[in-house]
Amino acid sequence: MSRFIKKISKKAGLSPGTLIHIGKKTMENARIRIIDYNDKKLNEKDLKKVEESFPFKDKPTVTWLNIDGLHDTGVIERVGKHFKVHPLVLEDIVNTGQRPKMEDFDDYVFFVLKMLYFEEDTDEIRTEQVSFIIGPRFVISFQERVGDIFEPVRERIRKAKGRIRSSGSAYLAYALVDAIVDNYFVVLEKISDRIEELEQELLTNPTSETLAKIHSMKRELILLRKSVWPLREAISGLTRGESKLIGDKTVVYLRDVYDHTIQVIDTIESLRDTVSSMLDTYLSSISNRMNEVMKVLTIIATVFIPLTFIAGIYGMNFDFMPELRWIYGYFAVWGVMIFITIIMAFYFRRKGWI
Amino acid sequence: MSRFIKKISKKAGLSPGTLIHIGKKTMENARIRIIDYNDKKLNEKDLKKVEESFPFKDKPTVTWLNIDGLHDTGVIERVGKHFKVHPLVLEDIVNTGQRPKMEDFDDYVFFVLKMLYFEEDTDEIRTEQVSFIIGPRFVISFQERVGDIFEPVRERIRKAKGRIRSSGSAYLAYALVDAIVDNYFVVLEKISDRIEELEQELLTNPTSETLAKIHSMKRELILLRKSVWPLREAISGLTRGESKLIGDKTVVYLRDVYDHTIQVIDTIESLRDTVSSMLDTYLSSISNRMNEVMKVLTIIATVFIPLTFIAGIYGMNFDFMPELRWIYGYFAVWGVMIFITIIMAFYFRRKGWI
Amino acid sequence: MSRFIKKISKKAGLSPGTLIHIGKKTMENARIRIIDYNDKKLNEKDLKKVEESFPFKDKPTVTWLNIDGLHDTGVIERVGKHFKVHPLVLEDIVNTGQRPKMEDFDDYVFFVLKMLYFEEDTDEIRTEQVSFIIGPRFVISFQERVGDIFEPVRERIRKAKGRIRSSGSAYLAYALVDAIVDNYFVVLEKISDRIEELEQELLTNPTSETLAKIHSMKRELILLRKSVWPLREAISGLTRGESKLIGDKTVVYLRDVYDHTIQVIDTIESLRDTVSSMLDTYLSSISNRMNEVMKVLTIIATVFIPLTFIAGIYGMNFDFMPELRWIYGYFAVWGVMIFITIIMAFYFRRKGWI
Amino acid sequence: MSRFIKKISKKAGLSPGTLIHIGKKTMENARIRIIDYNDKKLNEKDLKKVEESFPFKDKPTVTWLNIDGLHDTGVIERVGKHFKVHPLVLEDIVNTGQRPKMEDFDDYVFFVLKMLYFEEDTDEIRTEQVSFIIGPRFVISFQERVGDIFEPVRERIRKAKGRIRSSGSAYLAYALVDAIVDNYFVVLEKISDRIEELEQELLTNPTSETLAKIHSMKRELILLRKSVWPLREAISGLTRGESKLIGDKTVVYLRDVYDHTIQVIDTIESLRDTVSSMLDTYLSSISNRMNEVMKVLTIIATVFIPLTFIAGIYGMNFDFMPELRWIYGYFAVWGVMIFITIIMAFYFRRKGWI
Amino acid sequence: MSRFIKKISKKAGLSPGTLIHIGKKTMENARIRIIDYNDKKLNEKDLKKVEESFPFKDKPTVTWLNIDGLHDTGVIERVGKHFKVHPLVLEDIVNTGQRPKMEDFDDYVFFVLKMLYFEEDTDEIRTEQVSFIIGPRFVISFQERVGDIFEPVRERIRKAKGRIRSSGSAYLAYALVDAIVDNYFVVLEKISDRIEELEQELLTNPTSETLAKIHSMKRELILLRKSVWPLREAISGLTRGESKLIGDKTVVYLRDVYDHTIQVIDTIESLRDTVSSMLDTYLSSISNRMNEVMKVLTIIATVFIPLTFIAGIYGMNFDFMPELRWIYGYFAVWGVMIFITIIMAFYFRRKGWI
Repeated sequence: MSRFIKKISKKAGLSPGTLIHIGKKTMENARIRIIDYNDKKLNEKDLKKVEESFPFKDKPTVTWLNIDGLHDTGVIERVGKHFKVHPLVLEDIVNTGQRPKMEDFDDYVFFVLKMLYFEEDTDEIRTEQVSFIIGPRFVISFQERVGDIFEPVRERIRKAKGRIRSSGSAYLAYALVDAIVDNYFVVLEKISDRIEELEQELLTNPTSETLAKIHSMKRELILLRKSVWPLREAISGLTRGESKLIGDKTVVYLRDVYDHTIQVIDTIESLRDTVSSMLDTYLSSISNRMNEVMKVLTIIATVFIPLTFIAGIYGMNFDFMPELRWIYGYFAVWGVMIFITIIMAFYFRRKGWI
Repeated sequence: MSRFIKKISKKAGLSPGTLIHIGKKTMENARIRIIDYNDKKLNEKDLKKVEESFPFKDKPTVTWLNIDGLHDTGVIERVGKHFKVHPLVLEDIVNTGQRPKMEDFDDYVFFVLKMLYFEEDTDEIRTEQVSFIIGPRFVISFQERVGDIFEPVRERIRKAKGRIRSSGSAYLAYALVDAIVDNYFVVLEKISDRIEELEQELLTNPTSETLAKIHSMKRELILLRKSVWPLREAISGLTRGESKLIGDKTVVYLRDVYDHTIQVIDTIESLRDTVSSMLDTYLSSISNRMNEVMKVLTIIATVFIPLTFIAGIYGMNFDFMPELRWIYGYFAVWGVMIFITIIMAFYFRRKGWI
Repeated sequence: MSRFIKKISKKAGLSPGTLIHIGKKTMENARIRIIDYNDKKLNEKDLKKVEESFPFKDKPTVTWLNIDGLHDTGVIERVGKHFKVHPLVLEDIVNTGQRPKMEDFDDYVFFVLKMLYFEEDTDEIRTEQVSFIIGPRFVISFQERVGDIFEPVRERIRKAKGRIRSSGSAYLAYALVDAIVDNYFVVLEKISDRIEELEQELLTNPTSETLAKIHSMKRELILLRKSVWPLREAISGLTRGESKLIGDKTVVYLRDVYDHTIQVIDTIESLRDTVSSMLDTYLSSISNRMNEVMKVLTIIATVFIPLTFIAGIYGMNFDFMPELRWIYGYFAVWGVMIFITIIMAFYFRRKGWI
Repeated sequence: MSRFIKKISKKAGLSPGTLIHIGKKTMENARIRIIDYNDKKLNEKDLKKVEESFPFKDKPTVTWLNIDGLHDTGVIERVGKHFKVHPLVLEDIVNTGQRPKMEDFDDYVFFVLKMLYFEEDTDEIRTEQVSFIIGPRFVISFQERVGDIFEPVRERIRKAKGRIRSSGSAYLAYALVDAIVDNYFVVLEKISDRIEELEQELLTNPTSETLAKIHSMKRELILLRKSVWPLREAISGLTRGESKLIGDKTVVYLRDVYDHTIQVIDTIESLRDTVSSMLDTYLSSISNRMNEVMKVLTIIATVFIPLTFIAGIYGMNFDFMPELRWIYGYFAVWGVMIFITIIMAFYFRRKGWI
Repeated sequence: MSRFIKKISKKAGLSPGTLIHIGKKTMENARIRIIDYNDKKLNEKDLKKVEESFPFKDKPTVTWLNIDGLHDTGVIERVGKHFKVHPLVLEDIVNTGQRPKMEDFDDYVFFVLKMLYFEEDTDEIRTEQVSFIIGPRFVISFQERVGDIFEPVRERIRKAKGRIRSSGSAYLAYALVDAIVDNYFVVLEKISDRIEELEQELLTNPTSETLAKIHSMKRELILLRKSVWPLREAISGLTRGESKLIGDKTVVYLRDVYDHTIQVIDTIESLRDTVSSMLDTYLSSISNRMNEVMKVLTIIATVFIPLTFIAGIYGMNFDFMPELRWIYGYFAVWGVMIFITIIMAFYFRRKGWI
């Protein structure tokens, strides 16, 4: 089961701006990659030390510094100091329990959102925090672990595909956010496939496992909604053109991401509604089955209990029971029993039970 | 079952503005039709190549270019280039998973919405995406497949009925959108007929199939709402008169479409509420039936089990059982049994069970 | 059952402004009545032809033209032409599936709302559309059929009661709308009476008919809400004083109607909440009854099945069964049985079942 | 049961401003009390005729005129005329079905709200309407019946406690409204006590009466919400400082009442949520009980029905049944029966039923 | 169980500004602590009398006066008088049933919120009220009892860690509020752990105790929401920079607390949704179990009741029953019985019951 809340209690009471990594440590050393480009040239390399990236800060080219792994708070602190990032922002970067948000400092924009994965084995949605510092000529991105979601963007930079090489840092940031939001659709597709399977199961053969799956799907959707919902406001903040770092041309593209976000949220709401409705349907479905079980029991019992009673009557050992002496008594009893059974059958048919 | 989400994962990671058709390929070649008119003359023809339409762009007459079939992205790209449409707009046109929306570029307005069909066999609502590029003297419409929903508008143009021939491109766009929204009412009528049938079934003879139908109807309505709800905002965007392309006279008409859209949304909400309530009612209805089944079982069992016990008593083979020797023992037992039955009958009547 | 939606599909595809009557034809000819008054004189008559009313348009007196019956679209078209009403407004007047709304054209205000009736036989709420064209010195009202709801207003005009004779057309329109909204309370009273009856039934003797009634009441309330809710906005539009036709003095009165509308909506919401809660309560109530039925069955079965088993034991025909030979065997068995029954009784009492 | 709506149908169709008392007539004559004070002197008396109060209107002292009993519309009409109150306001005062609201006329502010009582016998919430006319140097309060809720305020005036004697009419109005809102907390305390009792009952011993109580509590809360919710807006209207009658100093106090109102509304919402949840819990609780009943039945039946069958076998009267002749047949049968019982016991224990 | 509402009825009717302590008296004397500091020096001591703190008011250093225990209203009154705090504010401080809120008086800001504790024994959330008076160079904090939640802040002041010693009173207030909000996460973690345990229990082994726990958890969450929800608005009030006491630098920090508050609220909502869903799941889970019980009963009864009937038939004592005389009659009956059993087994398998 996904957890409702990250264990951030260890942070309680600390001075604001203290960098404490909240989340799992997934790797030994942070991996630092830099891509520096303009429309003419491209420079891509893995860095040993984060300090190697510092000279790029003031170059006229666009610099993308990507840091995978947040537990090495020293690295993040040094980057923060050099790029003059507010300590609270650094704290937010390493605390992976953030809500998606956008904060506009004059010299840079801080943007944080969630990357999503769907674990098909357990039907769980895993989230990972990705943060961006968007400066006038640089973008710094922070991920919890090494992933390949930004690879297509790197490829576009390398191959100088589309506008990316000729646009500034804001467009690069857009491309990265867009890659993450596009990936939401992949996750939603998987979830909706699973829900459709569950719907089939629900209507044809509901078991107690179906119930557990529906409940856990509902729970995952509740958490998913919590992860994605605030993104709407965050991206809307970018498109409102409040920051001078984001040019009008890029705003058109951001509006496109905004539309996608709304679409993701709409879909999550629809899925939530459907799963809620499935929970109601489940109960009715189970009641239907019980009804059927009860009908079988009732029919059998209602037919045979009176017959058994009659047999019981003539099993009594009274000395004087005239019927027992009749030569056709036994057959008469059979006749009565068959008659009763026919009556019952009619009654059940009229009730629509058989 | 309708799907929650279009399979758009194949688009993930691509450069923005890349035209990838999302949806089913329903025809071999796109069908291209052009109608060019003013209040005096009319020119209507099917085009082999989309390039034939390019000269119409700058004519003072109103040009309506209709393209059926979105899989031929080459056609759409060439149109887009000639009519100077933003690449993101072209991407939205061929990606049929769009939310309805209005976007105002200075030279043209982009408008996208859903056309609805109700498949009576499966009780499913099918949606199809229709996009419009509304320029100063032209309208380009894109449909997923050939349909006849715009035929009445064509007829009005041909016969010069109403204001259409003497009004500009915005009025033409209005007429087309109006045709689509009017069609929503046709779909809603069919859905509400089906819901009324279901209500009858629910209250008179609820089966497990009724449950499946109610659940699937709820699901369809959830998806329908998702398709129509954003249209409100989109049309409202047109009526707010932000675009200089849409004159005041046309705004009056658009307000009318806006009212219709609100009415459609209101109706969908009412239907959703009703179907939700039906799901609750279903469970009660099933419980009622089970109650009835249980009562029959209980009455029969409660009457006959004690009687059978009595018969069992006198079926015992003890050597010394005085009652067995009594001459009227047998009849006395019958008396006792009849007495018990009468007592029970009174009890059940007082409980209101029979 | 009330219908969710008016059959307006026959209108789909027609040119806007085409007058198609949507609704039932309830009378042969439209009935046209005119009242023309100022504080000094009064002129009231039934008109044969609507053209007779045309000269009143420009008189300095207040003219109230009332038209009952909408199927005769010719009449409405001629009125519309003479009083310079927009064709879309005329279309809305005859299409009785409108949402309540207010539209401010410079020369007149168009106002449409629903009149309500409660059919006590069927527990159904019937709605009828009433439209107003409010001009500087005239009011034209359109009703679906002849009704007596405006009679008190006519009486006040005739008897010059209150401010009505000395006020203008906006006050007259207010008086008419007020009469309709006042009538809502009459309808709500009847509905709430019915709901209170249903609540009694629910808690004392819930049958499957009770369920059907609750469900249908919920449905009626869903539709009622849809009919009344938009009125809030419509009247609010009038009170915001946007139209120069509505003087400040009348706004005070319209605010009063606005308050009443809010009160009506509040009451509908309360009733809806109550009926929803009744649906939940119904299920619990039915479960309670089933519980009771089950307890009776269980008590009887649990007591007698073991006893019958014991009787069965001594009904066996084994050659060697020592107990059968004992002289007090039979009585011992009775003793055992009574003992078991007492134990069971204690058990049931401890469980709280008897 | 509290009623959803006051019987105000008798008002329908009347001229606006007609004073019709809606509500119960609770006393013979209206009781009229006046308190006139400034920081130096105090004058308090009961009036026989309302006209005695008229001279106080223009005195520089603060005058509080309290009228208990609304059925004597003549009194209210005369007061209204002398103090120049709008006829619609007078109508609202005597129509006790008002929503709480604030209306700002230039010379005075009209404020109406509900006083609440909790009838502990019937678990019903009774509401009473209280209206205020707040003028520059006078406050007129109208109550449905004589009550003691304003007594503490009177006492403060008499004893010149706090700021009341040195402040103006707006502060007096505040003190009166505050007394009413403070009383809401008393009522809420009683309701929440009752709900806590119900929760106990629900979880320990749910009966069908518990259900009726929960349902009726929910209903009362729905109505309570309707009575209190609009007060938020009404008081907010006072604090927004739109009226020149309400000075800045008093606004601080009114903000305090506003906070209390929000708190009351929050509490009502919490109670409503809790009661709704109790309704759901009730059903589960009942199902739990049924489950227990069913288990007892199933255990008994499942154990004894097969045993009875075995006994039945050996009660058959076939001429040739070898087992019957065996010397240990009888004991063997007992052995088999005991064995079956033990098997069953294991099975039930594994299922967790015993 | 936590209570819905504090017993504040004893306050009803009192003059505003009367200090009445609402809450439990937890200690004999209020504990008064003062810390006075600037970036150079630090002065910390416990005070015997509150008057000792008065000279600090106008010192240029930052003074933090902490008062634990609210029942000694005399102390609070004297502080209030000296620091010129509005009587209504003092009343709010001692009335522990306040909603979180921020009030901006020109000379100081009043801020009140709830501290939370989770009692692990009873699964109850306890709230405690904490109030702040934030002046230009002082902060006065009021707590209901002595607690250690502010200890880390004191430690930071003592050790001159972070910005705290060099910043003003607003930053101190921020640090204190931040400590409280950070603690919310600790509480939420515990609650979410408990809910996860409950979910396990629900799906594996639901008992009636599980139901009671779910219900009570829902109730706690309803109350928790009521305690935290208004905090959003209160902190937002601080960040909007309306007060001149709160500098721009501090606003950045307050925005951080604001984000945390939103996160807390989001989490509470998610938990509420999950618990609501658990209530629905519980019912289905119980129905599943009943279904299983019923199946066992039905299978046993359906198999053995007919067999017992057959045995009963041949237990009858008719003189003339030909089958009884057949030499293989007994074995034939066994054959029939086994045949019936096999048929039944097939039937049950096809139904999926065994």
